[in-house]
Amino acid sequence: MSGVIARARTPVTAALREIQAPVADRLEEVVAAMREILVAELPLIGSVTDHLLRMRGKMFRPTLTLLASAVEERPQPRAVTAAAVVELMHLATLVHDDSVDHSVLRRGLPTVNSLFSHQVSVIMGDYLYSRALSALVGLADLELLRILTNVSNELTIGEMRQLAALDRLGSSEEDYLTTIRCKTAVLLAGACEIGAVSGAARYRNALAVYGDRLGMAFQIADDILDYVEDSGTTGKPSGLDLRERKVTLPLIAALRTMTAAQRSRVDAFFAREDPDDDAGVADMVEIVVDAGGIDYARRRGAEFALQAEAALAALPPTPARTSLLEAVGYVMERRS
Amino acid sequence: MSGVIARARTPVTAALREIQAPVADRLEEVVAAMREILVAELPLIGSVTDHLLRMRGKMFRPTLTLLASAVEERPQPRAVTAAAVVELMHLATLVHDDSVDHSVLRRGLPTVNSLFSHQVSVIMGDYLYSRALSALVGLADLELLRILTNVSNELTIGEMRQLAALDRLGSSEEDYLTTIRCKTAVLLAGACEIGAVSGAARYRNALAVYGDRLGMAFQIADDILDYVEDSGTTGKPSGLDLRERKVTLPLIAALRTMTAAQRSRVDAFFAREDPDDDAGVADMVEIVVDAGGIDYARRRGAEFALQAEAALAALPPTPARTSLLEAVGYVMERRS
Repeated sequence: MSGVIARARTPVTAALREIQAPVADRLEEVVAAMREILVAELPLIGSVTDHLLRMRGKMFRPTLTLLASAVEERPQPRAVTAAAVVELMHLATLVHDDSVDHSVLRRGLPTVNSLFSHQVSVIMGDYLYSRALSALVGLADLELLRILTNVSNELTIGEMRQLAALDRLGSSEEDYLTTIRCKTAVLLAGACEIGAVSGAARYRNALAVYGDRLGMAFQIADDILDYVEDSGTTGKPSGLDLRERKVTLPLIAALRTMTAAQRSRVDAFFAREDPDDDAGVADMVEIVVDAGGIDYARRRGAEFALQAEAALAALPPTPARTSLLEAVGYVMERRS
Repeated sequence: MSGVIARARTPVTAALREIQAPVADRLEEVVAAMREILVAELPLIGSVTDHLLRMRGKMFRPTLTLLASAVEERPQPRAVTAAAVVELMHLATLVHDDSVDHSVLRRGLPTVNSLFSHQVSVIMGDYLYSRALSALVGLADLELLRILTNVSNELTIGEMRQLAALDRLGSSEEDYLTTIRCKTAVLLAGACEIGAVSGAARYRNALAVYGDRLGMAFQIADDILDYVEDSGTTGKPSGLDLRERKVTLPLIAALRTMTAAQRSRVDAFFAREDPDDDAGVADMVEIVVDAGGIDYARRRGAEFALQAEAALAALPPTPARTSLLEAVGYVMERRS
């Protein structure tokens, strides 16, 4: 999550625009639908809504919903509302995450908790979620409701898993995969599945599997970036996860192969709680790279990416399917 | 809200037990249903759930749902799940309220934010709400979903209204009534309405109106208690709302009739932000009583109570109807 902040100012890449091309018009409708769903008489809600719609990101999840609904070139109009609901659910979790983490910036703009208050961010997250659900209930389809209430259950369980991780250096790869499935992959899977239900029902399972594997690859790529990306100012990786002592796949893999001396340095780093320990972060990055943790995570990410592509094999050769295939490459290659 | 804390240790009154008698068995089933809805593999969720079920209150809202479902003596089994969902939604808002207010105690037990952490309480509130909704989706009735997602929208708007009230002493009676309708009455109205939909559909509108007026009377009575109840230790009103500079009906009414000298003392009290200003609180209580604010609020509460009773006029003379009538008296006379 926190990695998003450091990578906030990069504009939408051309590659993503190409992926979005088959649904570009309807993506504009999604933004209008989001605004309409959130409308309220209370000026404070209007101010927070305006801010949130300004800070909206690349609309990757609604893009998946719209593309999934279009794989047979018969997308239903309700796919637009469904896509708006997915993005609002995503926004609701971001607002609560930022509140819980006391984050100051997201996507280059002040968070709701920093610009308004902690109170406003907790209640506004609830507002976003309950409005999204009302819009979903308005579509009068229990299947859509089943999919997305299940997604939101899993998202909260993913957050609780992160909070409950006491013995962080004892986390197994399986723990990690379960957590990222809950916190990231279920929402991408749900975005694809509700798209399928809104225009390509026969590919519902294939698209849900695609979204799940894409989500796993997405989060692993995100966690690798925290170790390898240039932060832009120092020329070194920002290591935001390390500063919060979050244990992700590169470190889990490296812990299995590192030397005893390296392990002592890792233990000492985790015993300290100093987020400003730049030398410590640089040392951790060096150890993880040296022990092959990045290479291992890249291989695991590539496996999920291949599974995502394989899930699309049975789909008809439409522009939407091409975009979904390209989305796999986008997730693997993105630098922001 | 905060008034609940000081009145935490009073046991359930005999009167409430009598009101609950026609549905006592099914009220036990509601508790079991709540536990089942919340079950999760993660130990942290289990710990918080156990704590929340220990601190559960008088189950007033589920009681209303069960009674409403029984007014024709043909309650549907799903009323138990619907009642559990209502109480879980209520618990979710309490957990977020306590987190937002940094409250330490509720119903005589530590709040989730104080016993676990602020983070756990934000995410656990989300968990409670999303599990409640999943259980509701499981009942596969869009009408129940429409009623309760609308309730949760209104609840968040009520909370935002409270946060947005900048010119507190400028609040009108209409502002106050809108806020308490959003934050309290809509949930009681929804509890009654989903009960009606689960066994007494022809009385749906009557029971929704009953719940709304009961909720208005309930909140006004609660706000009066803050001015008049003995806090138990000092022999004086606790004035918790005044300590937080919350403006409720007794003060709004008193502001219309108080002398200029009294108004100056009120302005000075609100300009200070000291929550421990016992003398100031005592002075405010004296002014509000003297200016007739309590009497006015009692009259307004009694009007809503009469409207609640009137809404029951068309219902058949069943034990459930008798209990709903008695619930009006309970709300007006309760001291805790």
